[in-house]
Amino acid sequence: MTRFRVAVHIVPRKGVLDPQGKAVSDALHALGFSAVHETRVGRHLVLDLDAADRSAAESSVRGMCDKLLANPVTEDYEIAGVTTP
Amino acid sequence: MTRFRVAVHIVPRKGVLDPQGKAVSDALHALGFSAVHETRVGRHLVLDLDAADRSAAESSVRGMCDKLLANPVTEDYEIAGVTTP
Repeated sequence: MTRFRVAVHIVPRKGVLDPQGKAVSDALHALGFSAVHETRVGRHLVLDLDAADRSAAESSVRGMCDKLLANPVTEDYEIAGVTTP
Repeated sequence: MTRFRVAVHIVPRKGVLDPQGKAVSDALHALGFSAVHETRVGRHLVLDLDAADRSAAESSVRGMCDKLLANPVTEDYEIAGVTTP
């Protein structure tokens, strides 16, 4: 078993309202950052886990996303990277 | 001016307690994912903005992180990528 570090992005689905992103955009505009058009706010998870190899680590994290970490109705997830810490 | 899409990771600093990450780890263990050792939960922001070039877009987003998006006492941020959407 090797220790792997897997990074996951969980973001609101396209077409799903993102009120947190809207609030951030509005706050940025109020601070003078008027070049900002849109902001999406998601979660960035970093998981340290033991797995036999890189692909086992990735598929294990996909299982976690499907079962707990991401809401399949409103969110998409992607594995951003698998490294050895 | 070109439209750029900048992705930012904002994560709790090393050494700062991450109760959300601890809660996720505990929930994963309860679901049988016992190989997970540690989970850190941060934010993943995707900003669409206009800028003269790639480095201007990146430095503009660094300013946003310093002024609004990240808490400098408890969080670190990194620019994860600059693309043209």
